[in-house]
Amino acid sequence: MSSLAIDNVGLLITNDPSLGDGALGEVRDAAVVFEDGVVVAVERAGVEADERVDAEGRCVIPGFVDSHTHLVFAGDRSVEFAARMAGADYEAGGIRVTAAATRGASAAELERLARERRAEGLRAGITHVEIKSGYGLDVAAEAKSCEVAAALTDDVTFLGAHVVPAEFEADPDAYVALVCGEMLAACAPSCRWIDAFCEVGAFDADQCRTVLEAGRAAGLGLRLHGNQLGPGPGVRLAVELEAASVDHCTYLTDADVEALAAGPTVATFLPATDFSTRQPYPDARRVIDAGATVALATNTNPGSSNTTSMAFCIALAVRDMHMTVAEAVRAATLGGAEALHRPDLGRLTPDARADAILLDATSPTDFVYRPGVPLVRETFVAGRRV
Amino acid sequence: MSSLAIDNVGLLITNDPSLGDGALGEVRDAAVVFEDGVVVAVERAGVEADERVDAEGRCVIPGFVDSHTHLVFAGDRSVEFAARMAGADYEAGGIRVTAAATRGASAAELERLARERRAEGLRAGITHVEIKSGYGLDVAAEAKSCEVAAALTDDVTFLGAHVVPAEFEADPDAYVALVCGEMLAACAPSCRWIDAFCEVGAFDADQCRTVLEAGRAAGLGLRLHGNQLGPGPGVRLAVELEAASVDHCTYLTDADVEALAAGPTVATFLPATDFSTRQPYPDARRVIDAGATVALATNTNPGSSNTTSMAFCIALAVRDMHMTVAEAVRAATLGGAEALHRPDLGRLTPDARADAILLDATSPTDFVYRPGVPLVRETFVAGRRV
Repeated sequence: MSSLAIDNVGLLITNDPSLGDGALGEVRDAAVVFEDGVVVAVERAGVEADERVDAEGRCVIPGFVDSHTHLVFAGDRSVEFAARMAGADYEAGGIRVTAAATRGASAAELERLARERRAEGLRAGITHVEIKSGYGLDVAAEAKSCEVAAALTDDVTFLGAHVVPAEFEADPDAYVALVCGEMLAACAPSCRWIDAFCEVGAFDADQCRTVLEAGRAAGLGLRLHGNQLGPGPGVRLAVELEAASVDHCTYLTDADVEALAAGPTVATFLPATDFSTRQPYPDARRVIDAGATVALATNTNPGSSNTTSMAFCIALAVRDMHMTVAEAVRAATLGGAEALHRPDLGRLTPDARADAILLDATSPTDFVYRPGVPLVRETFVAGRRV
Repeated sequence: MSSLAIDNVGLLITNDPSLGDGALGEVRDAAVVFEDGVVVAVERAGVEADERVDAEGRCVIPGFVDSHTHLVFAGDRSVEFAARMAGADYEAGGIRVTAAATRGASAAELERLARERRAEGLRAGITHVEIKSGYGLDVAAEAKSCEVAAALTDDVTFLGAHVVPAEFEADPDAYVALVCGEMLAACAPSCRWIDAFCEVGAFDADQCRTVLEAGRAAGLGLRLHGNQLGPGPGVRLAVELEAASVDHCTYLTDADVEALAAGPTVATFLPATDFSTRQPYPDARRVIDAGATVALATNTNPGSSNTTSMAFCIALAVRDMHMTVAEAVRAATLGGAEALHRPDLGRLTPDARADAILLDATSPTDFVYRPGVPLVRETFVAGRRV
């Protein structure tokens, strides 16, 4: 197998403190060598390789690991978005609008749309992505969505419990039973994870517990949407069930922060969502200072976060959530990998998957210092330029 | 002269209500035809032209007119920025750091750096730019800066009164006299505008008045930095002197808003600066609702706004300043032209300069709905692709 080296890297972020300075394991004047899809060496600049990319002193970081997206959907909600910016509230029920369009789209059309979004994310440096279902809300459309997602990633999440569809409005528990029964059976073969939306207007804690336990029994790992639009039981439920991640965490009580600090569950922040819904930003400082592990993800979806820009998420995380640049970069790379239980991702260390971004910058500070400026020069996935 | 048409435009923003719907003069299924560097026609889709660009249903808007930048500088302040994000305050005195680097750089080096920044802005859709001096702060370095700027635009602004340089700290009025005398004489031939920074730590109202009146006597138009870091006399001074624009307007009293509404001065907001300095965002609603004209600009500079992304400014203006998408798009195009007294710019109407952006979007709502996603597909300046 031929090797590829990114050489003359002014600043290499490895995310391994044993390889370099600080929490991010920073190495200056470095080279990183890929072979067979994985990292084989981190060295001083000036290496031999079959193919050599000259970084000319620029910065290289691990590829972004986007642990929370909804890339499989049809339809457009820009009019709803504009109305919200003019004063309307965000409500979970808008999900049904996308569900109607998604049910009506063929698998081929859904896959075409999802691949366009995935390509956009790759250009923006997202080298690995989790994709949820959740805009089908019936057995056929959820199964179709999971299959489409599985064509794009090996981290597919079954989110039948995204919102109660209109036809079950009078009997939400019957919908929960469907999710845990026939729908889960149809979707599980494409999935690694199960998720639920624990929120007023979506599902309560008992319903979410029922769904997640059914998923666990089917062999899936657990994730949860929690505490997005107000305080609630989601975070503590996720920690109690030892979910891999609880996502949003916008409204946290002291008890929620204590639970996150004591448990194995990653707190995943989705600040582009808080931007798009005019929610306050999560208090990341409190969560990090308590000792919890955090991730940043885009939450790409048509209702509350129609972006593939992890750089934008990092800028908000530093400016508005008071994370340091190093904390935000770690959260968008290694933090995402931890939220997906993927030890092979999120770092540029020997044996990790060779996923990297060559920046048009000498430091990741530019994600915040130069907001809105495209800074991803080249993206590498499994050792290959994409 | 050959003609170029952008055809099959799903949504064309003309900024002329007589040509189409709403305040932006929106035309659907349109074509816009350029010849000899200017717009010659806005028509229904399906036109004849020597060269034809197929927009395939996408949106075309007038090019961004960026009426406030400091593109001529040397040095880097990313370390200061990171410190600020970790809690340090922003102070006007940081300008001196850039002045030291700029004085030490050759004109050729300054021009190379400024051209790189201008090219980045063009890729981001900025078709016209104002450029200020203000990092020289001595006669030779200010004259050098103005000449470099004049190689890139015909809207150059002399900003000798940016901050008092260290060597005049004990006698700021002597520096003001230098600005109004020898420095102005050296710079005016390259310039169309004069500007001053009216702020605690920079210049007071009397000093700014002296500078602007000297500039007017030398044939220059007037602009002013005002009310950035706290309330102050800048806005009212600018209106009293009938300046073309007063820029920042972050802290406004009722009297300031009344003055803006009654006078000829454009209020120019620089929200990427408020992002980068963690200031509150200006209350644009109050200014617009009072009837004043507003513009949005990037304020590209190394200390407080190191971005060329007008799209980012629009996103902040809508999300955090409660402007509508239409108001923000107008402010970033026609508003900038008004702030520069450039009736030839900021609109896609017959005889206007043929400056346009073809978006990777069907509506400008995506600047806010899809934050951080690169949406500028092609930029046209004076009828030519750049």
